[in-house]
Amino acid sequence: MKEKKVSESKTVMTEIVMPNDTNPLNNLMGGNLMRWMDIASGICAGKHCEAHVVTASVDHVSFTKPIKMGNVITITASVTRAFTTSVEVYVEVFASNMKGGESRMSNHAYFTFVAIDDNTGRPISVPKIVPLTREEENLYEGALRRRELRLILSGRMQPDEASNIKHLFSN
Amino acid sequence: MKEKKVSESKTVMTEIVMPNDTNPLNNLMGGNLMRWMDIASGICAGKHCEAHVVTASVDHVSFTKPIKMGNVITITASVTRAFTTSVEVYVEVFASNMKGGESRMSNHAYFTFVAIDDNTGRPISVPKIVPLTREEENLYEGALRRRELRLILSGRMQPDEASNIKHLFSN
Amino acid sequence: MKEKKVSESKTVMTEIVMPNDTNPLNNLMGGNLMRWMDIASGICAGKHCEAHVVTASVDHVSFTKPIKMGNVITITASVTRAFTTSVEVYVEVFASNMKGGESRMSNHAYFTFVAIDDNTGRPISVPKIVPLTREEENLYEGALRRRELRLILSGRMQPDEASNIKHLFSN
Amino acid sequence: MKEKKVSESKTVMTEIVMPNDTNPLNNLMGGNLMRWMDIASGICAGKHCEAHVVTASVDHVSFTKPIKMGNVITITASVTRAFTTSVEVYVEVFASNMKGGESRMSNHAYFTFVAIDDNTGRPISVPKIVPLTREEENLYEGALRRRELRLILSGRMQPDEASNIKHLFSN
Amino acid sequence: MKEKKVSESKTVMTEIVMPNDTNPLNNLMGGNLMRWMDIASGICAGKHCEAHVVTASVDHVSFTKPIKMGNVITITASVTRAFTTSVEVYVEVFASNMKGGESRMSNHAYFTFVAIDDNTGRPISVPKIVPLTREEENLYEGALRRRELRLILSGRMQPDEASNIKHLFSN
Amino acid sequence: MKEKKVSESKTVMTEIVMPNDTNPLNNLMGGNLMRWMDIASGICAGKHCEAHVVTASVDHVSFTKPIKMGNVITITASVTRAFTTSVEVYVEVFASNMKGGESRMSNHAYFTFVAIDDNTGRPISVPKIVPLTREEENLYEGALRRRELRLILSGRMQPDEASNIKHLFSN
Repeated sequence: MKEKKVSESKTVMTEIVMPNDTNPLNNLMGGNLMRWMDIASGICAGKHCEAHVVTASVDHVSFTKPIKMGNVITITASVTRAFTTSVEVYVEVFASNMKGGESRMSNHAYFTFVAIDDNTGRPISVPKIVPLTREEENLYEGALRRRELRLILSGRMQPDEASNIKHLFSN
Repeated sequence: MKEKKVSESKTVMTEIVMPNDTNPLNNLMGGNLMRWMDIASGICAGKHCEAHVVTASVDHVSFTKPIKMGNVITITASVTRAFTTSVEVYVEVFASNMKGGESRMSNHAYFTFVAIDDNTGRPISVPKIVPLTREEENLYEGALRRRELRLILSGRMQPDEASNIKHLFSN
Repeated sequence: MKEKKVSESKTVMTEIVMPNDTNPLNNLMGGNLMRWMDIASGICAGKHCEAHVVTASVDHVSFTKPIKMGNVITITASVTRAFTTSVEVYVEVFASNMKGGESRMSNHAYFTFVAIDDNTGRPISVPKIVPLTREEENLYEGALRRRELRLILSGRMQPDEASNIKHLFSN
Repeated sequence: MKEKKVSESKTVMTEIVMPNDTNPLNNLMGGNLMRWMDIASGICAGKHCEAHVVTASVDHVSFTKPIKMGNVITITASVTRAFTTSVEVYVEVFASNMKGGESRMSNHAYFTFVAIDDNTGRPISVPKIVPLTREEENLYEGALRRRELRLILSGRMQPDEASNIKHLFSN
Repeated sequence: MKEKKVSESKTVMTEIVMPNDTNPLNNLMGGNLMRWMDIASGICAGKHCEAHVVTASVDHVSFTKPIKMGNVITITASVTRAFTTSVEVYVEVFASNMKGGESRMSNHAYFTFVAIDDNTGRPISVPKIVPLTREEENLYEGALRRRELRLILSGRMQPDEASNIKHLFSN
Repeated sequence: MKEKKVSESKTVMTEIVMPNDTNPLNNLMGGNLMRWMDIASGICAGKHCEAHVVTASVDHVSFTKPIKMGNVITITASVTRAFTTSVEVYVEVFASNMKGGESRMSNHAYFTFVAIDDNTGRPISVPKIVPLTREEENLYEGALRRRELRLILSGRMQPDEASNIKHLFSN
């Protein structure tokens, strides 16, 4: 199976927050942001896997400072680690006003995608990822812990089998 | 502070999966489903709080069986527990075809919303919830555990301070 | 032909009135409301008929109090009566503000749908409806009168042949 | 109060039926067509009244032959008669394929709009209409009958008071 | 090859400028106007060619006075001249407020479309146009000059080969 | 007036071609692509000018190979040169399939934007641009020629006054 760099599939997406994307307080609705994050990370996953992909899961997402109508949203998506038939994608959201000012990091999240064969509709193997920078290595290492938590939260692993994260909870 | 029943704010939403909601495999994109879940749970939270609300967080969401174009989506949202200025909402997604057949549970998730004062834009107190049925009580009890995990995952609590969930990980 | 209850296909739909749904006076445009009513009643008709359906007609719709931007719309749709290859659906629209307040009935209308065979594209027989409550019975009885008026208005019946409604106009 | 010709406010609107406007049978959904009819007739009414207008009612609409995805819809809207603070608009819908072929009349309907004062939000007087052609005169005359039926159907007139239409039903 | 009049394919389109079509200054965004111009001129070209068409090019477009939210846009599109497998369409944009007032010409542009065979996906011959009025003749004559400039700007003709326009630049 | 680098405002936008963006041949409609190009270049211009901007003009755009439904569009926008109160932005469009394959340059165009004062609504001065790379210098130099052609095409300059381009047409 071939190996690919993180930079080969990194995806950048830019959107303006329009009136229909906001609630009556003129803040971007959380669900619209998640929709954009899903599209950006799905394009990124498709490029890495060279296949159609479907969203398998989204990890915990927090929303902190509100994003206002007319703000410009920049979303970056990078593959952190490839598993057998799936990849984890790290998504960061930045917001600024239309004049490019007040720029800030707004959100981040981890999405998981499964690569699908066009004909059979079944999962297929995906290329490995080669982390190069320090940050890419950190994201690569953390992917195992996040995967265990994901398996526990979706009921497919018992907490006490979670060898990578259980020490965090014991004293 | 007044108390309210779960049924007083329960919200049902129905949508048809249209071509623009799907990926090239004709499956509903995960991000679109999260957007609908956010709207349904936000309406539910607004009704309970009698206030405008903003999404504070979304817990882990898994996507299992694909939902096809033309399917009918029914989303139900119910408040599980009210905290000081926030509520947790449990969302369930059901899918069926346009003829009402092949109905199945597709997803579930927990959204958290903060109630906001119209004038100051700051969090305000919310009514308490009174769980009545066995299922409502289970959701009410579990809310504390989910809240601890949420605080850990957003970096506002240390894992070993998590009194409600750390025993799950120790042996 | 099998018989079905009204409750088996009752459909509830919830929408928020977004900026693009309103006119320059910030009121929901009538056409957008009719579009939502058509979707909700079409889903209801499809469930009852267990078939794809197409809108055959919409009876007179009145718009009274304006519905404002940011309001929450709840639409309920129930089959009133099944004819040979068509069903009449009664639709009610309720509006409230985002805080669940100022709730009121806003509109009601009758939509008629024809059930269509997937392969031939031609009308097919539909299950009968069994009215159970007093209100369901009233709607069931009234369906014959409304059908006569519909046939007159679309030029398929002469007014003086309308045995169910002509007495209303004579003195 | 000034008088205006029908031609001064006649409005033509053209739309392509896109995938999201259709049902799983690839036919334009009735509700989407009503939405376009409402917009075209509202623009027409606004031009005649020289005021913002709101939809007051839609008369019976029948849908006959299906309109397919990719078809071009042409909607024409003309004021038939002005009442004190409202106007009746006659709307015709034509459909053809993208190559301009298979052109046919698809639907027609009568919409009623009330003119609104920008500041007070209350109904205001509207200009009279001057019918010039034979067809305009027929539509002008028929407006009284349609208005009576509208008042009966919305419960604001008793059938036996309907002096313009009750003779249609007696023998 | 048959000949057709300009009036046989003239297309009129009407749109209301909605909130999502505007920038934070409440002006219609230029790109949305170009999208509507492309749709109107494409329908016009399809009618003349009696074929599916694809946009080949858009000439220089200037935007002068801003068009405000709530304005009504009327777009007219007419074929000016037919070449072997393509047509040039002249598009004019008029804007007025919702009350029909402050009407003015806002923009104009020339779009070129190529007619495509449904089966082969390749260009096909198109009917000739017969200019009848003085204005139609002027547009017909100017089409050759505009075509030369288009060929130069897309790099398919050298400026000094442009027999119809080079005299404009020499002194 | 301060000076800024091209890289400070460079903007990247990614979109998936959805069913509603395409014509009946399943190709992206030209007008939708121009709409995205306008948004990407407007964000870029706003960042450089640190002001709200409005589209002043779009130069000639050619469409060559069709872009198919499901393709991923990447748009890059960079300021080429700043004039007194306006900037020219160079936009490039790349298309690939969802698997990241068949990547190719699809279109390019020049958009011009005017910077607007929030309070007065009038044009304001904009920062100068500092071209650094060879390509940035070429785009910077060419901007004068393109500006002259723009002034001629919008009727604000006589062709024989066009000192930068008239030699191209003489022999």
